[in-house]
This record gives sequence, structure tokens and C-alpha cells, in this order.
Amino acid sequence: MIPTKQDVLGTYERVKPWVHRTPVLTSTYLNEITGASLFFKCENFQKMGAFKMRGAVNAIQNLSDEQKNHGVVTHSSGNFGQAVALAAQKLGITAFIVMPENAPFVKKEAVKNYGGHVILCPSTMKDREETSQQVIKEKGATFLHPSNDMDVILGNSTATLELLEDHPELEVIIPPVGGGGLLAGTALAAHYYGMNCSVIGAEPIRVNDAYRSLLSGKIETNSSSETVADGLRTQLGDKNFPIIKSLVKEIICVEEEEIIQAMRLIWERMKIIIEPSCAVPLAAVLKEKEKFKNKKVGILLSGGNVDLSNLPF
Amino acid sequence: MIPTKQDVLGTYERVKPWVHRTPVLTSTYLNEITGASLFFKCENFQKMGAFKMRGAVNAIQNLSDEQKNHGVVTHSSGNFGQAVALAAQKLGITAFIVMPENAPFVKKEAVKNYGGHVILCPSTMKDREETSQQVIKEKGATFLHPSNDMDVILGNSTATLELLEDHPELEVIIPPVGGGGLLAGTALAAHYYGMNCSVIGAEPIRVNDAYRSLLSGKIETNSSSETVADGLRTQLGDKNFPIIKSLVKEIICVEEEEIIQAMRLIWERMKIIIEPSCAVPLAAVLKEKEKFKNKKVGILLSGGNVDLSNLPF
Repeated sequence: MIPTKQDVLGTYERVKPWVHRTPVLTSTYLNEITGASLFFKCENFQKMGAFKMRGAVNAIQNLSDEQKNHGVVTHSSGNFGQAVALAAQKLGITAFIVMPENAPFVKKEAVKNYGGHVILCPSTMKDREETSQQVIKEKGATFLHPSNDMDVILGNSTATLELLEDHPELEVIIPPVGGGGLLAGTALAAHYYGMNCSVIGAEPIRVNDAYRSLLSGKIETNSSSETVADGLRTQLGDKNFPIIKSLVKEIICVEEEEIIQAMRLIWERMKIIIEPSCAVPLAAVLKEKEKFKNKKVGILLSGGNVDLSNLPF
Repeated sequence: MIPTKQDVLGTYERVKPWVHRTPVLTSTYLNEITGASLFFKCENFQKMGAFKMRGAVNAIQNLSDEQKNHGVVTHSSGNFGQAVALAAQKLGITAFIVMPENAPFVKKEAVKNYGGHVILCPSTMKDREETSQQVIKEKGATFLHPSNDMDVILGNSTATLELLEDHPELEVIIPPVGGGGLLAGTALAAHYYGMNCSVIGAEPIRVNDAYRSLLSGKIETNSSSETVADGLRTQLGDKNFPIIKSLVKEIICVEEEEIIQAMRLIWERMKIIIEPSCAVPLAAVLKEKEKFKNKKVGILLSGGNVDLSNLPF
């Protein structure tokens, strides 16, 4: 069942005190080279550096007191692990973050600094899931999924709600597509709060399960997870896909080189640090200029956690 | 003679239509590790990516019509060259930018993209000055100095004027110190518009002519210009030093490693791109934490033009 307008608004009231209202930036140069008017919602400036904070805060707040007492668990080597750790710390509950042994040191440290309990396991998905199950069994903790969870999707929608409050005139909003949680949340907020505002996803062609799923009408899978957009390697889920199918017009696929070029443009011209994942929407606009010409386009810059010692340029 | 409060205000009215009012950012994490409340004035988001736009706009506007007809000339391989080119373009006059032959391709291109006429010469200071003299002679162009020019100093003061409008409670403001033009401008605005707000300069120890000049009371020179803070290699001048001597309390010197560490902290934690030069003030706060403890401190992030292929980390 698709959440209502009241669900989105209720979520915002719940999430608002715990997140930054991030700024919306523009760039004369990027408007010139695209021919569109671009409005960048800077979730790279969000607490812990990504929009994921919104979904984590909402999901944790919606737990029962009994659940809260036993804490939460997720498996993630990326932003969602940090988001759950920080949200749990702020809301005064325990968070167990299952991470692969080979995760970068800085990512493990970040989770620990946010008060999360890091539980290491071998790096296969099977091991991560089994280890999470063990934590659920032993600690009674509640599992939180990074994208295929209605509370997370609703939490994500609040970024677009803010963007549309600031710029109600937007005609299209483009989020990057990974597990589909941000795309679904964006589509919900645009549907209820936009003035005829459509949502177009932007996805790396190498992991374009969402693009293919939208065409076929059923959830497709990726054979590889290899892309520079490391936040977008995850698979579409059965909670977010119905929302996407019902509210999303189109998904544009882009090549690796196009992602890297768009990322560099944002770094050089806007002087802000974004992850490769959130360069994907600008890459889509640059690829299909005619489609966005003279349009007012919102772009979700989803996060800014990047390893400065390992840049793609 | 030190400019008056009216001079600063008049400058702001003149400069305002041509520059961005840049945002002031804060960082919970950086406040925690320094023990101070830091307010970062983001001139890295300024047009052409640096505060230099302010001085260039003001200096050009103050020319006579006769001077404007013959254009302006400066020698710079850095931000001031770009600033003069862009300001001249916006104000409809001709700009000649003398640049060393070995200047990076992207810097030459940036000046050309802003409509500047690039004039190449050998890379010694003598050659640059002689080439500039030739342009003055042949074209009748007016020479603009990047830091030792009262109109440039007054233009620079407008960044601090805005910062104090947004945060009148600031107790100290720290600009980086290179040629002294930003330090002098900051000191003027803080003197006239601050509520008991002092100004402390931050300078790389390797090129600390301003630090030594403030101690000796006369203009000292640097024996080397080697520092990662490439915008701060220039020398103090006879126009800005009297203002600095009269209004600046202190200059803090920092090591190369401290600059690089502070730069990385700002990139990683604030998710914004700054030049090494403007990491110098944060490095100074980190070095002398006791001095700034519980203080409200303004930090001028002077620019964001950095070669992404050649980062110091």
C-alpha cells in the first residue's frame, strides 16, 4: 500500500528535530552548460554526511518501546551503518552494525565514533545476513534495511519535501537509484507536494536493475555490482518497487565515465564534495540535455562521504 | 591614511551587485575538537571561486572613464588574474592578464573563459613586471595590484562586513595572510563593524613576512616562497602594512603539515572544497586552542580553486 500525504507530513514532523535542513545550491556555469535550471539539494551536508540519516531516524523512532530496549541491527559498510549508529545514539538506543572484516578502517572508526557496536564478519552477503540473524536472535535487536523499509522510504521523502518547500516551481526531480529507497521516497514527496512535478531516476548502466525492472514490470537483478558509484550497488526491493512503478516516469542510465566527469564538474565548479553516487543525476542531465532544456530541475546530492585518498580522478 | 567607516560602507554598496553574498557555515565536529564556536565565511563559493572578486570589482569601478577605456592589466597566475578578467568582463572593459608561460593550462583557460587577454612571459618576477609595464605603455592600461592597492583592500573588507552582519557577536576573525590585502581589509571591517571584535592573522611559517613585520614594525621579506598554501607566497606591501600595524593584534604561524591536516579536516567534515591557503586559519585555531576556547571565531575561507589532480593528501 502506498503511504498517504499525511504519512509523509507526519514523518517530517518526527524527523525534523534530528536532521539538518540542508541548503539548496545553484550554479550559473552548470545551468549554462546544461541549458536547464538546476537546484541541488545538498544532503552531502546532512548529519553524518548523507540523506540516510533521515530514514534511520524515522525507522528508529517508529519502533515500540520494547523494540527500542533491545536495540537495532543492520549490515552495511557504507552510509546506512553510520546513519543507524548516529540516529540510535541520538535517540538513546543501542545499535549493532554488522560490517565486513575488509571494510576500510575509516568506515569502522566512523561507526564507532557515532557510538555503534561494530560486529565484523566475512565479506559475503550470506555471512552478513547470517551474522545479522545471530544478533537478532541473541540480543533481540530489530533489523533495519537500508532501502526496502517503508519507514526508511518515508524518512527519505523528507529531503524532497524540504526541496519543494524551498522551490515549489520544480518540474522534475532526479535522485540517484541504488536500492530504490531514495527514488521511492522522492516520488512520494513529489507526488503529494509538487505542482505537477515528475520524478526521473538516474542509475549507473552497470547496475541498472531498477531501469530494467521499470521496463519489465517485475524486480530484475544485477549480475555485477561493479560501479564507481559505490552507494548504488544494491538491489531494488519489494517494498519500494510498487511505489516506483506507480509514480516514477522514467530512469536514465549513464556510463562510468559520465559519472566521473559529472562528479568532477560538481567538485570544480560548485566547490563541494559529493560521492560518486550523487553525480549520477547530473550525468543524466548532461546526457539527455534536450529532455531537460529550460526545465527547472531538482537534483538530490545524496551524500559526501568519499575516501579522499582514493578519488576516481 | 586609514580608510573611514564611510569608505567601507561605500565600497560595499558598489561591490554588492557584482558578487555573491556567500553563506556562513558551521560544523559541530570542528567546534568540538577546537573548543571554540567557528563561523566559516565561504568565499570559496564566491564568483570565480575566491574573495579576490571583491577587490577586483571595486578597483575597476573606481577607475575614471578615461582609464576604463584603456583597460586594466595585472600579472598573476592565480585567483587575482581570474578575478580581474571576470570583473572586467562584467563591467564591460578590457583586461590584460600577464601570466608565466609555465602556468598550468587550466589557469590560462580560466582567464580566457572569463574574457581576459592572456599575455605570456617567462616566469621570473622581473619578466612579469617588465611585460606588465609594456602593456601599460602600449595600451595605456591601468595596473592593478592584487593586494597592495587601497581599492582592493576596501573590496576585500566587504567579506567581513557581510560576516559581521550575519554574526555580530563574533569576538575574533582570522583571515589567512599572504600579500596582506585580505588581512588589512578584514581588520578595517572588524574595526568599524565589530563589537569589540579583534583580528588575528594566520600565516604559513615558511613565508611569515607579515608575522616578522608586525614584530619589527617595518616591512620584512621572505627568503623563500615555498609553501603548500600557494595563495600566500606574496609579500606584504606599503599600502596594507600601516593598516595591519594599526589594527591587527597578532599573527599566528603554522607549519606545512598543520595546514594540510586542517585542509583535510575541512574537506572531510564540512564537505566543501577549499584551497590550502584558507586552511591556515583553522590550523592556527587547532594550534592555539587555549587562546580561542569558548570564543566565537570567524574564519575566512578565502577560495576554492584547487587542482584536483594534485592534492596534498
